[in-house]
Amino acid sequence: MQPEQLLARIRVVLCQTSHPGNIGSTARAMKTMGLSRLVLVRPKRFPDPEADALSSNALDVLQGAEVVDTLDEALAGTVLAVATVSHEYDLSHPLLTCRDAVAETVATARSGDVALVFGTEASGLTADEVRQCSVCAWIPGNPDYNSLNLAAAVQIFAYETRLAAFAGFPAAQPVPDLASHEELERLHEHLAAVLEEIGFLDPNNPKRLVPRLRRMVARARLEQVEVQILRGLLTTIQERKLLPRPRSADSVARAGNQRPQ
Amino acid sequence: MQPEQLLARIRVVLCQTSHPGNIGSTARAMKTMGLSRLVLVRPKRFPDPEADALSSNALDVLQGAEVVDTLDEALAGTVLAVATVSHEYDLSHPLLTCRDAVAETVATARSGDVALVFGTEASGLTADEVRQCSVCAWIPGNPDYNSLNLAAAVQIFAYETRLAAFAGFPAAQPVPDLASHEELERLHEHLAAVLEEIGFLDPNNPKRLVPRLRRMVARARLEQVEVQILRGLLTTIQERKLLPRPRSADSVARAGNQRPQ
Repeated sequence: MQPEQLLARIRVVLCQTSHPGNIGSTARAMKTMGLSRLVLVRPKRFPDPEADALSSNALDVLQGAEVVDTLDEALAGTVLAVATVSHEYDLSHPLLTCRDAVAETVATARSGDVALVFGTEASGLTADEVRQCSVCAWIPGNPDYNSLNLAAAVQIFAYETRLAAFAGFPAAQPVPDLASHEELERLHEHLAAVLEEIGFLDPNNPKRLVPRLRRMVARARLEQVEVQILRGLLTTIQERKLLPRPRSADSVARAGNQRPQ
Repeated sequence: MQPEQLLARIRVVLCQTSHPGNIGSTARAMKTMGLSRLVLVRPKRFPDPEADALSSNALDVLQGAEVVDTLDEALAGTVLAVATVSHEYDLSHPLLTCRDAVAETVATARSGDVALVFGTEASGLTADEVRQCSVCAWIPGNPDYNSLNLAAAVQIFAYETRLAAFAGFPAAQPVPDLASHEELERLHEHLAAVLEEIGFLDPNNPKRLVPRLRRMVARARLEQVEVQILRGLLTTIQERKLLPRPRSADSVARAGNQRPQ
């Protein structure tokens, strides 16, 4: 696969950007490195003349930008989503450097679409948004001055992406059929339903079990066939005629012991 | 020599910058990567409130900036000067990529002061300015859209500089408590037992299910606490009073459908 084809599979997702100028600068930063797919989740103002002005002739990127309501929509069809973060989140995905994350992103782009996801200017991504991704990536910088502009962060990621795309890959590696974002979300729904049915997950007191499971699944980079196997396993558990077991104080306590949080 | 000491020896030189805002953005870009020495050759307007505004609290870099009349003065005391360029100059110095040039810059900083030199927004460095440097460096980008903003270029160079300075000084990252080989083996035994109990795994005809599961688990790099959660889940499934279901031809066929091999 040619580097340009890989770059065409990499989308930049901006979540709830406040300043349209930053959307314009992002389009410019993307285009300097040959990225063209921009997805905007609930931007405060878009389209906007300020975005156009700061795009410096990357108007084609702005005009092709997709505007959606949720990160979930923005990630539709992707097989890998990288959450760009400036700090560690509780129970988050593996934290990679920008360079390492991009190496993985570009390698994964051989299997399908991938996303680099950026949060708001003021506070970055929410913990919930991070959980919808599969990897966290940060730009190693000055710990005493963590004030990287949004478009500057996109610029660095785009730069590393281009270098990685043009670096060429070690001789033909098998390309796994990775599960898509939607397939993984359906797996999580199914899993949560079964865990509730068997009394392992108390929907009124989920504690940190769900984020923990999401983190584990994200790290495993499941293939389509593996998701099918797991879904089959969940269906098998459901099909067994389980005797109803009321949740007693005792069973909660026991389950608690088995599930360190 | 410590990384911070190396960074302190690296100065950023901006030649005849037109827009004070770009000087402010440059100061910000430098500070995010721990660079602090800024030298301005005949800036059009400096100091300037627009520079202050765009520096985003990197005012210390602006206040410490040196303003000089010639590139010659800006390079005083340096042992290496890197001309950043967007195209090749006639009879110029060796042209390196940003990454390679920065590797040399940081290595040379152990011997003395070094400079990264940037030209004007409109036309970059003059041929004469390039000749006063020792190396040319370019940022590999989209050949059809060569419109990297000045501060964005500084950002990429500063980023590469920090990575090179800290290479070999890995930042302390949290180390997860990964599950041991034995813990994983016990998990696999437990999993196989439960899959048999619920009729998902036929021990006489395991096909490729077991190796597939092992592969998935291996890829997930499970932590100790995650293995405990999964074991707890398996125990919960076992504790449910499952109604015995004889393995019929029908159920085997159905299970087969759910488990693509």
